[in-house]
Amino acid sequence: MKRQAGPEIERLIQLLAKLPGLGPRSARRAVLHLVKNRDKLLTPLTAALADAQEKVSECSICGNVDTLDPCTICTDHRRDKTALCVIEEVGDLWALERAGAWNGQYHVLGGTLSALGGVRPEDLDIDRLVNRCAEGVIKEVVLANNATVEGQTTAHYITERLKKLGVSTSRLAHGVPVGGELDYLDEGTLTQAMRARRPF
Amino acid sequence: MKRQAGPEIERLIQLLAKLPGLGPRSARRAVLHLVKNRDKLLTPLTAALADAQEKVSECSICGNVDTLDPCTICTDHRRDKTALCVIEEVGDLWALERAGAWNGQYHVLGGTLSALGGVRPEDLDIDRLVNRCAEGVIKEVVLANNATVEGQTTAHYITERLKKLGVSTSRLAHGVPVGGELDYLDEGTLTQAMRARRPF
Repeated sequence: MKRQAGPEIERLIQLLAKLPGLGPRSARRAVLHLVKNRDKLLTPLTAALADAQEKVSECSICGNVDTLDPCTICTDHRRDKTALCVIEEVGDLWALERAGAWNGQYHVLGGTLSALGGVRPEDLDIDRLVNRCAEGVIKEVVLANNATVEGQTTAHYITERLKKLGVSTSRLAHGVPVGGELDYLDEGTLTQAMRARRPF
Repeated sequence: MKRQAGPEIERLIQLLAKLPGLGPRSARRAVLHLVKNRDKLLTPLTAALADAQEKVSECSICGNVDTLDPCTICTDHRRDKTALCVIEEVGDLWALERAGAWNGQYHVLGGTLSALGGVRPEDLDIDRLVNRCAEGVIKEVVLANNATVEGQTTAHYITERLKKLGVSTSRLAHGVPVGGELDYLDEGTLTQAMRARRPF
């Protein structure tokens, strides 16, 4: 390949192409877009990244990503300290917060158990979760793992570990998603939704 | 929406979401990916963006995006100075360079004429193109506009402007793309390919 632009640009394209959702082609388009919109995008994005690089870290309590440690959620006194929601990734935490679906604490596992992928319990943040629950403040744990085989296996494993601590555990309800059309749903979801039907 | 992370992170997500190919959801995933891969991605990307912001600009001769002005291509003495290829955007220039398809000069128009979009000749870099051709060095101009109605209208308009300068003009060949299957091609392409058929 001929060199069509400076090595700085090539390097920027290569780095942007590593972001999820971007490939080499869209990274090139992104770079051109950045250069075209220097004042509106390139300059502020550079500053925002430098800012994030300097300030953002993982919360040492829950694993959330924030500029504070402990994070905004862990230090919020209006939130329920006795209830904890376990999620696989920080993105799941953000999703629950966007929905306003939870007003307790969080614990990010950092993944899911996987025999095939070689992810063992010690690879996830489970020991620290058990320690948090052993402190006696937390009474209820919601295992909001993904509704996949691996997610549910992980949830079961954690339930077993928490049993002896006298903490009540629950999982998210399965069923028809709001706005979902029956014709487009898989059989597993329909079966679960029918079994767990609720009186009007 | 509740605040799930610091304003620095929200701002970074908003800026990343403005890149072509990324929306709010993928921008959030990108930010989490960046924070997770701090040393491998966040730090080098921050540096690369700062570098680009400082050094990258548009070439004052051809409109290419480079760290040099005039750009690498305009200053390359091994390239043909008498032949010029007109393209709509810098991305088109990069595409031709990646293909190694052209060894002459370039001229980026910065768009395409559009009655509907309100893009007039004076909105594109056409006057400067005519001036470049009037200097007497350039003998041949390839109008590599996109094979769209607007691209071809633009190419015709430029041909008219260049006629009196005694510069020969041409356009890219239309036909079946290499690797293309006839069944998937539109009728216009097939008609053009049949009309322009070549002896074996």
